[in-house]
Amino acid sequence: MSANEASAATGAGGTAGEGHDDTYDVIVLGGGPTGENLADRVHAAGLSAVLVENELVGGECSYWACMPSKALLRPVTARSEARGVPGLKDAVGGPLDAPEVLAHRDAIVSYWKDDGQVRWLEGKGIDLVRGRGRLAGPRKVTVDGGRTLTARHAVAVCTGSRAVLPDVPGLAAAKPWTSRQATSSGTVPGRLVIIGGGVVGVEMATAWRALGAAVTLLVRGAGVLPRMEPFVGQLVAESLAEAGVALRMGAAAREVRREAPGGPVTVVLDGGGGGEIVADELLIATGRAPHTDDLGMETVGLAPGSWLEVDETLRVTGVPGGWLYGAGDVNHRALLTHQGKYQARIAGAAIAARARGVPLLETDRWGAHSATADRHAVPQVVFTDPEAAAVGLSAAEAERAGHRIRVVDQDLGAVAGAALYADGYRGRARMVVDLDREVLLGATFVGHGVGELLHAATVAVAGEVPVERLWHAVPAYPTISEVWLRLLEAYRGD
Amino acid sequence: MSANEASAATGAGGTAGEGHDDTYDVIVLGGGPTGENLADRVHAAGLSAVLVENELVGGECSYWACMPSKALLRPVTARSEARGVPGLKDAVGGPLDAPEVLAHRDAIVSYWKDDGQVRWLEGKGIDLVRGRGRLAGPRKVTVDGGRTLTARHAVAVCTGSRAVLPDVPGLAAAKPWTSRQATSSGTVPGRLVIIGGGVVGVEMATAWRALGAAVTLLVRGAGVLPRMEPFVGQLVAESLAEAGVALRMGAAAREVRREAPGGPVTVVLDGGGGGEIVADELLIATGRAPHTDDLGMETVGLAPGSWLEVDETLRVTGVPGGWLYGAGDVNHRALLTHQGKYQARIAGAAIAARARGVPLLETDRWGAHSATADRHAVPQVVFTDPEAAAVGLSAAEAERAGHRIRVVDQDLGAVAGAALYADGYRGRARMVVDLDREVLLGATFVGHGVGELLHAATVAVAGEVPVERLWHAVPAYPTISEVWLRLLEAYRGD
Repeated sequence: MSANEASAATGAGGTAGEGHDDTYDVIVLGGGPTGENLADRVHAAGLSAVLVENELVGGECSYWACMPSKALLRPVTARSEARGVPGLKDAVGGPLDAPEVLAHRDAIVSYWKDDGQVRWLEGKGIDLVRGRGRLAGPRKVTVDGGRTLTARHAVAVCTGSRAVLPDVPGLAAAKPWTSRQATSSGTVPGRLVIIGGGVVGVEMATAWRALGAAVTLLVRGAGVLPRMEPFVGQLVAESLAEAGVALRMGAAAREVRREAPGGPVTVVLDGGGGGEIVADELLIATGRAPHTDDLGMETVGLAPGSWLEVDETLRVTGVPGGWLYGAGDVNHRALLTHQGKYQARIAGAAIAARARGVPLLETDRWGAHSATADRHAVPQVVFTDPEAAAVGLSAAEAERAGHRIRVVDQDLGAVAGAALYADGYRGRARMVVDLDREVLLGATFVGHGVGELLHAATVAVAGEVPVERLWHAVPAYPTISEVWLRLLEAYRGD
Repeated sequence: MSANEASAATGAGGTAGEGHDDTYDVIVLGGGPTGENLADRVHAAGLSAVLVENELVGGECSYWACMPSKALLRPVTARSEARGVPGLKDAVGGPLDAPEVLAHRDAIVSYWKDDGQVRWLEGKGIDLVRGRGRLAGPRKVTVDGGRTLTARHAVAVCTGSRAVLPDVPGLAAAKPWTSRQATSSGTVPGRLVIIGGGVVGVEMATAWRALGAAVTLLVRGAGVLPRMEPFVGQLVAESLAEAGVALRMGAAAREVRREAPGGPVTVVLDGGGGGEIVADELLIATGRAPHTDDLGMETVGLAPGSWLEVDETLRVTGVPGGWLYGAGDVNHRALLTHQGKYQARIAGAAIAARARGVPLLETDRWGAHSATADRHAVPQVVFTDPEAAAVGLSAAEAERAGHRIRVVDQDLGAVAGAALYADGYRGRARMVVDLDREVLLGATFVGHGVGELLHAATVAVAGEVPVERLWHAVPAYPTISEVWLRLLEAYRGD
């Protein structure tokens, strides 16, 4: 089914008979999860959609981020948890079967082929154009400088972000790993140096150490995962050290040298005790930049290489006509796959409503056309050993935002369900309560199995469920979730 | 500190100088989790409290139910989950180390000694009287027929329940296991027959099969876990069968014979294919009866052996003066430890408010003095392999209650986070939505790791969070919790 047939069949979008094949209601640049979901949303609303992708449909998440990294990490946490389980612990004392883990990772990413995702698009009736899409003025997109696509209603930029290399002498020439190579390498490096103590740095240190690499983690600041509550980074760092990762805090690279391709790489340190570290591979995990530098942004008055500024409907601000949207990493609201998908749902609904001339619920903060959760309830799970999970504001963020708060902490190991989950369970939980409204502003957990604990907090924060009502949300005994009771008891001063 | 000192010190309850030592503001019969929490709540509110317990402080849950059963079951699920994890699966292919599991279970129950719990009471300043407490008229309790205690404000019956043996010829004489022996046995029986397909039956079948017993499970009805959504029992039964448990549906015992103590036991079947089954032990898990038959109920006009009828503040109805409360299993609202503890918090608050002459918030359904969750949001986790978890109403219950509902199901194995959790993940989720109010009435999950997924549903149900708002509660990717997105998408017809 062509795009115009789809449009006509559903009776929405476009003018029947107007079209040549290259006019669509909505053009989506970038076929990662955000772009796929946005195209799906507008298509489900009766608009025709085309997706333009110059690499693999499925994007970073499917091939070089979430999926392969979690495929590498799940065996690590499963083994670690099993080591705390009587009757089982001796069986799992040995190393992971690294070839099996890597082979499974390859299967999880479909061997870096996007046939399955392309079939999904075809099944949905969403057109795919392969190539580099660039804006060519209002509502126009050229693909690889040739074919021109025209959008009746909207162009959505969902091109994501990529790793940036810091400006260190010799670094680019040394061909370091970024998150892409770190999630897709087919072999375990003997020695791996990682620069960056954020999510990518600690997750990849966890994975490659467990797979057998000698790992050194260089962190510019005083601790890892600095955006989360301080106790998270402390426990994750402690656990990395116990796993044998060499942590160097306050360390940056002054110079990098790789004499021969495939040969060892030398990192000359600035701070962190100084000296040099020699390794087989070097992973740079220090930050991201938006994929907007080669998109023709200048043709619509925007600066190439910048993060896109958007309103709550994900529409790019300052573009006359209001036809340009930016969802996912490119708008810098929350660089997380699930949040990009969320934005895609909101933007898709907004685009469809505007195409139909339906008034938007813009005054309704939590309505269908406003990505309000981006500001109040962004969840994140870090798949380290143990896992870390947080949603909403940390205590420091809440204070900076001027909220009158109360912070309640709880030792997770003291919860019966945690003690039964694993011997010697270590973990911690925190909730941040807005004293004026008596609702949760945020919650953080670190410990085995907390990744699935988080959604209860996300529902409480996004749902603005009053603490008084949470008192009636009884956690089942004996689960780790009973930490909720302890937190609430402590808050109530019981 | 004596009870009167405690009372005077906090300035609440009782008349200073009135007392002899055996008068307390609140007398609690039964020192399980419900009794402990109720005593703790009233004590924290400034009232003096005494706990009367004739067995171990900590009760059924600590020594013969939740704690030991979960200590036996966690290794089973951890092993089963690890068997789906590449890099690890070969290591966990063998049997569990049963002696290690049993030894750990012994440690978890503190070797059936209550020193720790007694220290907790002492630390709190709650008196303990060991012995059988019986009502002896209004506000009076005798202990072992001797010492008399008097309550100024309330007597709370928190004596729980016990397993009942069905009326089968030869059964009592055969000395079958109940949940007590099934959770505390120090040896693995060669052959175990279990009668009853409820929670105790399936959990103990799971545990003892994994520890090496040949297990036969006799179920009177057509499936196990009949109170939960039908797909739960189907998957649990399938999984039990795969583990080697012999399931006999539609089967009841017509007669039981054990010729010699310690010798084999024979169960003559009625239905389920008939015939006889010979085993080393027989576990009866067919139901519970309230511990109210030897409590002096007749001295206050109540029938011994009956479940206690209570109002929303957990006060027993029909007792003049309103001084008698019943919390936990005895009131038959929800026979679950966490729900008993919840009732203890509510009853404790109500008792304290009435003692102070503070008006109760009885009109506030979700206020501090009403155990409203008992009727709308009772969570339950069944620690089988895989786990089952549910909160609120099943679809059938919601329909029987006259709600206009929509039921949405989702294959959990199709969620990326589940596929990453374990290869070949099998599971299912259901949410039941009230179409008139657009809130969740209930949710059910079955699959590995769902025990910690449940609390998000409990917050949504107890919090009455509208479906429209749940749309903004974004699940982190890739977790199993992303099933929430799939359920909501299906509900919205996306």
